[in-house]
Amino acid sequence: MSSDRREERRERRQQRREQREQALIHSEFAQPLHRLPVYELASAESVEMIHQTSLRILSEVGIAFYDAESQDILREHGVEVRDDIATFDPALIEHYISLAPSEFTQLARNPARNVTLGGDRLCFAPVYGPPFVLDLDRGRREARLVDFQNFVKLAYLNPFIHHSGGTIVEPTDEPVPTRHLDMLYSHIVYSDKAFMGSVTSAENAADSVAMAEIVFGREAIQQQPALLSLINVSSPRRLDDRMLGALKVYARAGQATVITPFILSGAMAPVTVAGTLVQQNAEALAAIAFAQMCRPGVPVVYGSFQTNIDLQSGSPVFGSPESQVALYASAQMARRYRLPFRSGGMFASSKIPDAQAGYESIMTMLPAVLARTHFVLHAAGWLENGLTAGYEKFVLDCEVLGMFHTLLKGLDLSEDALALDSIRTVPPGGHHLGTEHTMRRFRDAFYRADLFDYNSAEQWALNGSPDSFQRANAQVKGLLRSYEAPPLDPAIDEALQDFIARRK
Amino acid sequence: MSSDRREERRERRQQRREQREQALIHSEFAQPLHRLPVYELASAESVEMIHQTSLRILSEVGIAFYDAESQDILREHGVEVRDDIATFDPALIEHYISLAPSEFTQLARNPARNVTLGGDRLCFAPVYGPPFVLDLDRGRREARLVDFQNFVKLAYLNPFIHHSGGTIVEPTDEPVPTRHLDMLYSHIVYSDKAFMGSVTSAENAADSVAMAEIVFGREAIQQQPALLSLINVSSPRRLDDRMLGALKVYARAGQATVITPFILSGAMAPVTVAGTLVQQNAEALAAIAFAQMCRPGVPVVYGSFQTNIDLQSGSPVFGSPESQVALYASAQMARRYRLPFRSGGMFASSKIPDAQAGYESIMTMLPAVLARTHFVLHAAGWLENGLTAGYEKFVLDCEVLGMFHTLLKGLDLSEDALALDSIRTVPPGGHHLGTEHTMRRFRDAFYRADLFDYNSAEQWALNGSPDSFQRANAQVKGLLRSYEAPPLDPAIDEALQDFIARRK
Repeated sequence: MSSDRREERRERRQQRREQREQALIHSEFAQPLHRLPVYELASAESVEMIHQTSLRILSEVGIAFYDAESQDILREHGVEVRDDIATFDPALIEHYISLAPSEFTQLARNPARNVTLGGDRLCFAPVYGPPFVLDLDRGRREARLVDFQNFVKLAYLNPFIHHSGGTIVEPTDEPVPTRHLDMLYSHIVYSDKAFMGSVTSAENAADSVAMAEIVFGREAIQQQPALLSLINVSSPRRLDDRMLGALKVYARAGQATVITPFILSGAMAPVTVAGTLVQQNAEALAAIAFAQMCRPGVPVVYGSFQTNIDLQSGSPVFGSPESQVALYASAQMARRYRLPFRSGGMFASSKIPDAQAGYESIMTMLPAVLARTHFVLHAAGWLENGLTAGYEKFVLDCEVLGMFHTLLKGLDLSEDALALDSIRTVPPGGHHLGTEHTMRRFRDAFYRADLFDYNSAEQWALNGSPDSFQRANAQVKGLLRSYEAPPLDPAIDEALQDFIARRK
Repeated sequence: MSSDRREERRERRQQRREQREQALIHSEFAQPLHRLPVYELASAESVEMIHQTSLRILSEVGIAFYDAESQDILREHGVEVRDDIATFDPALIEHYISLAPSEFTQLARNPARNVTLGGDRLCFAPVYGPPFVLDLDRGRREARLVDFQNFVKLAYLNPFIHHSGGTIVEPTDEPVPTRHLDMLYSHIVYSDKAFMGSVTSAENAADSVAMAEIVFGREAIQQQPALLSLINVSSPRRLDDRMLGALKVYARAGQATVITPFILSGAMAPVTVAGTLVQQNAEALAAIAFAQMCRPGVPVVYGSFQTNIDLQSGSPVFGSPESQVALYASAQMARRYRLPFRSGGMFASSKIPDAQAGYESIMTMLPAVLARTHFVLHAAGWLENGLTAGYEKFVLDCEVLGMFHTLLKGLDLSEDALALDSIRTVPPGGHHLGTEHTMRRFRDAFYRADLFDYNSAEQWALNGSPDSFQRANAQVKGLLRSYEAPPLDPAIDEALQDFIARRK
């Protein structure tokens, strides 16, 4: 093949790729329905045993609340608090847990992109928290605000990411005290999907609420939350003043929180999955009950973030078989309390998007889907135990999120799908490529991951033998080039900028 | 750090790695038990609908048997055959299917490594069929006998591979008519695990039986099969004379077969999962019933090898969401007939072990495990739609097979695992690293994938930033260096060599 023809083919491929990307961007945003049967790993008796053992932790051992006002709230609601440790009567816990809704809607700036958390809906959100970013061109480096904004854009452009997330990366080039303002503003102007509030202090939480009021209106966010914020329990058995401060602000403002014990088994909890589950459940129930004491009926999500440490190095291990077992059982606990459930993510210990990262990511994400998780934070971009957000990893993960959308449709056994009449028409050893049945369903029959290479080895070699890391790099650049911001009312933008200027 | 100290540390790491590898090789071989609840994607009604529709295919449309003797056997057993097409009465099918055992044992040269197929046991076998191999040093090239032998050695050394497999790669440097003899001999002398027979013709099947008789004794293999062989249906609805020839030889000799319709949906079957399932089920039932007519009670495995084509390029797509749905439902069909089930594999369309290959592999393997598959061919080494066996991919896949062994143990909720007493001893915000409970369980608490990197980014950079492809390359070399053949009775070896010399 002459180099001209090769160049021509390359250009045609490039054009086709860009057309497909445009099609992807404009395809309809929709949270998938959990139509598949849920996978229940633990028996009903096991769920009850975990429940009962965690009630014993709550009543006999207790949870530390390091905040005087929170202790007063607990006491006012009948909880015994001594030396910062709250012990809970089981009936009291069950009562307050029962006040939380099993499903709620979070507002997005574009109402077509409001998300349902709980029930039959699944919501995917980007990675949260990494101080570093990685791409193929520049390697690993400290994350900056421009990286944060790039990830907001990538999340906005992808139809399989339903939520803009929170601290997608830490913008380390911005001063710590005002960083949250830049992140919130970036979520609002570069995306129209739902986003998360700051939890770094009560003040920052109040700023988040104030900015949400500017965007959505004070009344509107009293009716339905516009913020979903990540309250971590500092396991074992501890809620610090920072998290409690933020939790109080959000709960009182009617804003939703994800209450998540952050556990590496063997360090923050026993080395066993069972011990981890009972501790995690006790911690989650205590904080969820507290949120209900702050405002009965406020939406909360039962969160699990669990994996184990590598007992040789002390590092976390993501994608482990033990964490799969814990994930399924955690989902069952949340279902027992009829609470929306958060877990999972495209977790990887690998430093780069290599085979290890691919294996590890699915080893957690597929269980998260089968366990009927409602909110999957870290659904794209996670690398290096969460210390790094990978640009290429983000778009590769999104390809798999698209696959999950198809998986969740389950099995269609309609008469037309069974295709008995079509089977009759094809002789033994013939083929179904040109049947009327195939032609009619051709376009939408199978999900296609554009970033995955399905070429022959020969064609792939002609293309320069790019691995998926390299192909993803090209897609990231194309997406960021094609990005256009969703429209925003200039009055709202001005009000936000005024607010930020005053706070800075 | 001085370069001397760095060198010293590198050597210590190398030593530790070799010790771990030795420990791995000598750790006990055991097929994992299916202790987890099975994942049933399809409802009982759906299973019945697939069953009934496939009976209609069998009775109204029929399956082609391109072999005169096979047609005679079918007619003798009450099947109508006209123009090569056999149509089956539903009651007849149900009768012959019911004769097959739900579980059987295949002999291995080392009796401790006999494998159970069916029931509660899971058996992992290497990739089967690739004409090419790939490694990091030499890239993709035609497979040779030495590659075949290398893969037999790698499979022998790994405790998570329970079966030596069959045509792990095609030894393209050996003449086609006698290639099967070299492969069988290599399985026997380089491993002591169970292996598969040749299916390339009736004669080659007879050679396989003769060699098994030399190793195990004629009487012994009449009692329990020593061969498990892969009979593919040439979908749609066709059994050719080659496959029927081999099937007759094996069935009459009491040897086990895996009956597998080979289907890319959209080409060899309808473009829908439902249409694929009903056709696959009809094809499998016809061939299994035929095997039972050849010898009632002969062990057979219900096989499914299904994925879809990429409707843009016509290439197969592995790891697709559609194939997951089909896998779960296929397993349910096999359970309906109480037959051992074969499916899955670490399938990948990717040409190399990159992130794409990692994602794709787990997207099929995890469903295979949760669907309670009994025999997983292609459990390690598969690349490029099965055209290439990857050395590095093989050992990377094996790490994940180890994870599945741990996953399958499920959730231990014993009092000691619940660890309530230990939870009491750790104060809020303390840690569980040094508790008596952790110390006691330290060694075996978590599965550790040695090939996966859990180092810090800094340590990983000091080690030269190796990706998993590179690390696996080093492990392959170490394993092949450390390999020692299992002992073989010299009289048996001589008899085998005599047989081969005569046949050649």
